[in-house]
Amino acid sequence: MRDQNRQFRLAKRPEGKPDHDTFDLVETDVPDPGPGEALVRTRYLSVDPYMRGRMSAGESYADPWEVGDPLRGGVVGEVVESNGAGFEAGDIVTGDLQWADYATAPGTALRAVDPDLGPVSTALGVLGMPGRTAYFGVREVAEPGPSDTFVVTGAAGAVGSVAGQIASLAGARVVGFAGSAEKVAFLEDELGFDAGIDYSATDDYGAALDEAAPDGVDAYFDNVGGPITDAVFDRLNVDARVAVCGQISLYNATERPTGPRKLPGLVSKRARVEGFLVGDFAPRFEAATERLAEWVASGDLQYRETVTEGLESAPDAFLGLFEGENVGKQLVRVSEPDE
Amino acid sequence: MRDQNRQFRLAKRPEGKPDHDTFDLVETDVPDPGPGEALVRTRYLSVDPYMRGRMSAGESYADPWEVGDPLRGGVVGEVVESNGAGFEAGDIVTGDLQWADYATAPGTALRAVDPDLGPVSTALGVLGMPGRTAYFGVREVAEPGPSDTFVVTGAAGAVGSVAGQIASLAGARVVGFAGSAEKVAFLEDELGFDAGIDYSATDDYGAALDEAAPDGVDAYFDNVGGPITDAVFDRLNVDARVAVCGQISLYNATERPTGPRKLPGLVSKRARVEGFLVGDFAPRFEAATERLAEWVASGDLQYRETVTEGLESAPDAFLGLFEGENVGKQLVRVSEPDE
Repeated sequence: MRDQNRQFRLAKRPEGKPDHDTFDLVETDVPDPGPGEALVRTRYLSVDPYMRGRMSAGESYADPWEVGDPLRGGVVGEVVESNGAGFEAGDIVTGDLQWADYATAPGTALRAVDPDLGPVSTALGVLGMPGRTAYFGVREVAEPGPSDTFVVTGAAGAVGSVAGQIASLAGARVVGFAGSAEKVAFLEDELGFDAGIDYSATDDYGAALDEAAPDGVDAYFDNVGGPITDAVFDRLNVDARVAVCGQISLYNATERPTGPRKLPGLVSKRARVEGFLVGDFAPRFEAATERLAEWVASGDLQYRETVTEGLESAPDAFLGLFEGENVGKQLVRVSEPDE
Repeated sequence: MRDQNRQFRLAKRPEGKPDHDTFDLVETDVPDPGPGEALVRTRYLSVDPYMRGRMSAGESYADPWEVGDPLRGGVVGEVVESNGAGFEAGDIVTGDLQWADYATAPGTALRAVDPDLGPVSTALGVLGMPGRTAYFGVREVAEPGPSDTFVVTGAAGAVGSVAGQIASLAGARVVGFAGSAEKVAFLEDELGFDAGIDYSATDDYGAALDEAAPDGVDAYFDNVGGPITDAVFDRLNVDARVAVCGQISLYNATERPTGPRKLPGLVSKRARVEGFLVGDFAPRFEAATERLAEWVASGDLQYRETVTEGLESAPDAFLGLFEGENVGKQLVRVSEPDE
C-alpha cells in the first residue's frame, strides 16, 4: 500500500477540446474512511465521453464539476479498510469514485463485483454501465426486430460494440460506423456485424449506407451525431426508432452546432427519436447484468478493452476517446492485485 | 344543376412558394358515374397545408400530383346521382375528391355525413381530418397530463385550435403560438388557452415562452417548425414528448432548411420526438369523431371556420394558409344546398 495518494482535479474548464491543461495531478494523503465508509484502492478507472459534459459549466445530465474538484468516474477497486461499510478488506467493489489511487465512499455507494462473472474490469465495460446502456438502449428504445436493419455509430466503442451484438441477437441486420479499417475488421470478423463502414475513408456516408443498408434503416443507435447521423436520418424507414445515446462528435463544439432540420422527415416516416439515460433503468440493472454475463459466458457477446497503464495516463485515455483511439472499453489500470 | 363542370388542375410544379400560376381552372363536362360510383356536387372544399407536398415531385407522405392532374382534397358534397354506390341522391357525403364543382367517386371512397352532428362543413374541420389529427396527436403522441405544460404552434389553425382544447380537457396548461393579436385573443378568450404568443410581434420566442410557460414544456404539438420550434426544444422538460404533425414554415423552402442541432438536448431530457400521420389511426376514426362531436355538443370544444366563396377562390384560400390568413378551418364554399 502506498503511503501517498494521487488524485486528478479539474484544473480549468476546457474551451472546446480538453487537453492536458484541463487536468491537475495532486499528491494527497491517503484518506481515512468515515463511519459507514470504505477505503478503496483503485484497480481500474473508466473514462467515458459523458465526462466531457461535466467539465463545462452548462447544464448537462450530470452536474458540472467545479474547478479544483477531484474528477470522478467509474472505478473497480479493492476494499482496503471498511469502517462499518458492509464490506471486508479484500472485497472487490465498483462505484463512482475519484480519479485517484485511493478514495473513500459510503458503503451504500459501492456494489460488490463478483469475480466469477469474468475479469473484474468488465464491471466497467460489458458488464457495467456501458453494457447496460447498450442493453436498455437497444431493447427499450431502438427495439430492432428480426426483419429490421439496425445501424449504430461509435460501433467499435464500449457501448456501440455491445449494442450491435444485442441487435444481432434480436435478429436484425447490423451495420456499424467506426473510424478505421482495423475497427471495421473487428466489427465484421470478431463481433459478427453484417457490415461495417469506415467513416474515415469516405465523406459520402449516404452512399456507404445505401450499400450497407440497401433496405433503409429501421432502428438507429446514435453515439456520435453530426453528418453521419444526418445521412442515417435521410434513410429511415416508416416507423423507424432512433435511440439517442450520445453525440460525441459535438461535445467539444464551441458554438452551437447546426445541421439539416430533421423534423420534416419524421412526419412521413412516423419516426420516433428518443433520448435516454441508463440511470433511468436502475431498478433493472441487476437483471440486465445477469443477462449480459450469460451472453458473455455463452460466447454470444464478445468484448474488447483498451487499457492504458498507470493513473497518470488517465488524461491521455480520456482525450483519446475523442480521437477514436480506443477499441471497445477504454480503461486505465491503476494498480495490480499483488502490488 | 350546372351543365358544365369546372375543375382545378396542377398547371406546374411550384418552385418555392406556390402562386396563381400553379393552378389551372378548366371547364369540363359533368362526369357520369361508372358502376359503383356516385356523382357528387361539391358544397365545401378543404384546403390544407399537406397539399403543398403533393405539388412537388419529391417524396412526401402523399403521392405527388402530376402536372395536368386534377387537384384533390377533402370535400363535403351532395350525391346527385348514384350508380350502385350505396348512396341516394340528396345524401351528404365526404371523401377525397377533385377541386371541382362535380366529381365522381366509388361509393367505397365516400362516407356519409350526419347533418345532425353539426353543420356539414364540420366534416372537413373539427369533426373531420383536422379534428382527428389533433385528437390522435394529442392523446396518442404528445400525451399531456394534468400537471403538464402543453405548447402548440399554428394554434389558431384547424388542427392547432382543436389540439390545444383537447390538451386543456386533459388538464394541461396550454400555450399557443399564433400570428396576430387577433388570433391570440381568439385563443385566450374563446378557446380557453392559458396563454397565447403572437409570434409576429417578437423575434425572441424564448423570452415569450419563459413568460408563458415558466415551468418549461412537457408536451409539444408542432405544426410549424423552424425558429419557434428551436425555442421550444430548448425548454423541454425531462420526459417531454413532441408530436410532429406538420412543419408549414418549411414547406416552401427551395433549399434544405438548417437549424440548431436538436439531438444533443434530447439525451439529458430523455425526450421523445415522434412524427405521426392521422391515417395510421384509421381503425379508430369513428370513435374519435364521436368523441369530438360530444365535446362540440357540450360546448367543451369550440371551433371556427374561415370560408372563401366560390370554387374559383380555392387558390387564394390555399395560398392564404402560408400567410396565416385563416382562423380555424379554411374552407371554400362551392355551392349552396338550394342552388
